[in-house]
Amino acid sequence: MKHYLSISDLGNLQSAAKEAISLKKDPYAFELLGKRKTICLLFFNNSLRTRLSTQKAAMNLGMEVMVMNFGNEGWQLEFQDGALMNEGKSEHIKEAAQVVSQFADIVAIRAFADLVDKEKDEAEIVLNGFKKYASIPVVNMESSVAHPLQALADAITLEENKIQERPKVVLSWAPHPKALPHAVANSFVKMMKLQDAEFVITHPKEYKLNPEITKDCKIVHDQEKALENANFVYVKNWSCYTDYGKVLSQDKNWMMTKEKLENARFMHCLPVRRNVVVEDAVLDSNQSLVIEQANNRTYSAQLVLKRILEKL
Amino acid sequence: MKHYLSISDLGNLQSAAKEAISLKKDPYAFELLGKRKTICLLFFNNSLRTRLSTQKAAMNLGMEVMVMNFGNEGWQLEFQDGALMNEGKSEHIKEAAQVVSQFADIVAIRAFADLVDKEKDEAEIVLNGFKKYASIPVVNMESSVAHPLQALADAITLEENKIQERPKVVLSWAPHPKALPHAVANSFVKMMKLQDAEFVITHPKEYKLNPEITKDCKIVHDQEKALENANFVYVKNWSCYTDYGKVLSQDKNWMMTKEKLENARFMHCLPVRRNVVVEDAVLDSNQSLVIEQANNRTYSAQLVLKRILEKL
Amino acid sequence: MKHYLSISDLGNLQSAAKEAISLKKDPYAFELLGKRKTICLLFFNNSLRTRLSTQKAAMNLGMEVMVMNFGNEGWQLEFQDGALMNEGKSEHIKEAAQVVSQFADIVAIRAFADLVDKEKDEAEIVLNGFKKYASIPVVNMESSVAHPLQALADAITLEENKIQERPKVVLSWAPHPKALPHAVANSFVKMMKLQDAEFVITHPKEYKLNPEITKDCKIVHDQEKALENANFVYVKNWSCYTDYGKVLSQDKNWMMTKEKLENARFMHCLPVRRNVVVEDAVLDSNQSLVIEQANNRTYSAQLVLKRILEKL
Repeated sequence: MKHYLSISDLGNLQSAAKEAISLKKDPYAFELLGKRKTICLLFFNNSLRTRLSTQKAAMNLGMEVMVMNFGNEGWQLEFQDGALMNEGKSEHIKEAAQVVSQFADIVAIRAFADLVDKEKDEAEIVLNGFKKYASIPVVNMESSVAHPLQALADAITLEENKIQERPKVVLSWAPHPKALPHAVANSFVKMMKLQDAEFVITHPKEYKLNPEITKDCKIVHDQEKALENANFVYVKNWSCYTDYGKVLSQDKNWMMTKEKLENARFMHCLPVRRNVVVEDAVLDSNQSLVIEQANNRTYSAQLVLKRILEKL
Repeated sequence: MKHYLSISDLGNLQSAAKEAISLKKDPYAFELLGKRKTICLLFFNNSLRTRLSTQKAAMNLGMEVMVMNFGNEGWQLEFQDGALMNEGKSEHIKEAAQVVSQFADIVAIRAFADLVDKEKDEAEIVLNGFKKYASIPVVNMESSVAHPLQALADAITLEENKIQERPKVVLSWAPHPKALPHAVANSFVKMMKLQDAEFVITHPKEYKLNPEITKDCKIVHDQEKALENANFVYVKNWSCYTDYGKVLSQDKNWMMTKEKLENARFMHCLPVRRNVVVEDAVLDSNQSLVIEQANNRTYSAQLVLKRILEKL
Repeated sequence: MKHYLSISDLGNLQSAAKEAISLKKDPYAFELLGKRKTICLLFFNNSLRTRLSTQKAAMNLGMEVMVMNFGNEGWQLEFQDGALMNEGKSEHIKEAAQVVSQFADIVAIRAFADLVDKEKDEAEIVLNGFKKYASIPVVNMESSVAHPLQALADAITLEENKIQERPKVVLSWAPHPKALPHAVANSFVKMMKLQDAEFVITHPKEYKLNPEITKDCKIVHDQEKALENANFVYVKNWSCYTDYGKVLSQDKNWMMTKEKLENARFMHCLPVRRNVVVEDAVLDSNQSLVIEQANNRTYSAQLVLKRILEKL
């Protein structure tokens, strides 16, 4: 694997999840693999899980880690080709990406969607800028439209917790006061398409996801119907895709409750707003898998870094 | 030792100070103890000494260190049980504490008093939130009402510098333009109660500390009288405790001077405002122990981490 | 070498450049030299290259690295001797420098010119404050008037790329929308004075550098004439030195172009504003050495740290 930009870069998902689970059992088995190798984690946005789990994964592999908050600590970047740079931006992505490549063996990048201009977000200018100009592998720590480290952690969690050969997994929209990106939902959908499972997406009619991503997925607008006999329920808010980046409704009836969940396991990528997205009773029950998902972020990142290191 | 939240968690103070002094003589004696162990330092407030000394202590023990400024880099935390989280806060302490526990073996936390609501500050919601929900040991890097790593460093400094078997130690309030927390003074008082020493607290009448903490301590409002024949004088400002968080006076007569100090050694936790809290002549003399105190912060933290690691 | 504050601290420049080139060929040859040694990188201003390259250099030598953004994470510093500190600044450089010295073996500092008060900038209060009060070696990661790690990287780049025994090197001013410091230009000039080269400085009449630094240098105000038969052209903006810190003109005719450059190699310290300082056609051609310069920042820092470590 050269870059890890999308869940599809993994090749066979099941074998990736299984390899990650074996890393979880013996996290230091490859601690010499990353010796004298450095990863640079570049954050254009805030992070808790991603920052700590990716750092931890790299350390488990014996790597050196350099963490940088690009916004506060570095220079404002220009991404436009041919730009006349006489305003606020003092460095072009062409130089920034090549320069970082001189000091690290892998670069990992977090750059969220702005949720203002759909075309611009979908162009993934930060991530693709690094991919285009960096001479080292690039790892996606959540970009405008994808969060493949989360999706792999979710696949690991499903693999560890499924009882049925072919579980029913539901992705349910939930209300939220702020406009949130589609990255987690997109990567979860893409990952589920690679799973042997019954997969259903449920959301209010006005909250459909990018139809190219949900193509061939079963979409049900009646949440109750969608949840019937579910084994896993993945809850996530996202803002409107068609009326891009808008919060059209915050219908409280879509909050996940213990009653709705029945016997299914509850999943969420975190951070989660309690009693808005999901009620306390769910998170505080042993039906919740959210902490296991967070824990699996380490082994998701470790699998990805291991595969990249092996090809360096 | 599971957590280090208060100086009393150490058990016998003298043996802790002595063990720290032996670590100071051979700082790498236990550099394998922390191998493959990670400490996460979470800062909700600024730090110089605590950040660098705790990081250094962990590295001396062979640990990996992850430093995070929670305010700028992470998510705003909710601490209220049962809160409906539809406003500014995007993550609950329940998840945050459990999540950090997935990526580290020890978590250390700095979260100052707000000095607005005494009850809230004394509830130590950040520190106690982590203690309650984290599954790993928690270290106090200065909380609302306690700074036990400083107090242990002070105990080490006293142990190293005392000539008399039973020295006279004075804690003296000093003026300051800003409202400061009581944490350092509180932990120093608690620590002194565990010492074989003549201990006197002196402050203007309106600046009494929490009476539960100073219970059984000798308090003298006449600074000159208090300082008579002192061997060590610990100077520190704190804001009013009764009229909570207020700066009632900045009486310059309470500033420590070389004349007042006579032959005593001068102590302060730093940072210190020169010529407001203490005059230059004291800090620039060899009666000052402030740099030794700062240096001992490393061995204070190292002793604490060593004891926690031994119980992991 | 005790401190590295100026390019002249290196002693013989040619042998330093050659030693750095040999480190580049075998970066881990001295990875035991820095074992159990810690460097503290203190940033009073933003940084990309300097932060990552100095951290990388230290890690190549086996050192531990502590990075701190002093402005955001620490306390506001007072530099005035005898100051009565009853306003915004809560720690004096005397304490800060001594305290950092307790936790690290080397301290590296970045503190830019304010470009408001020439005398104050030239006094280098931050760098010299640390030099005066720290008990450990101090490395300049760009101060008000000097950037000697960049100048050494430039010397390495010249050494690696020169074809002629005595190349012609031109330092050319370029326009820029913001007022920039003189540090890079100053250190480049000082470094060139130690080279066996034909060295020419060209700038608009009103943009002369500090005459003490450019003393004995050939200065030509006609850029075209200056560039004739150049082998290397180092382009850099700086603000006015006489009308201190002002942007007097942004004459676009001074932008470096492929046509002007002819067959010379192009150098710049980065970050660079494309199509303002230099046109795309130069940066995107293989005449550009900017990425090699950035890469050599690692070996510049590594040579400096190696020499300091050898004297510890």
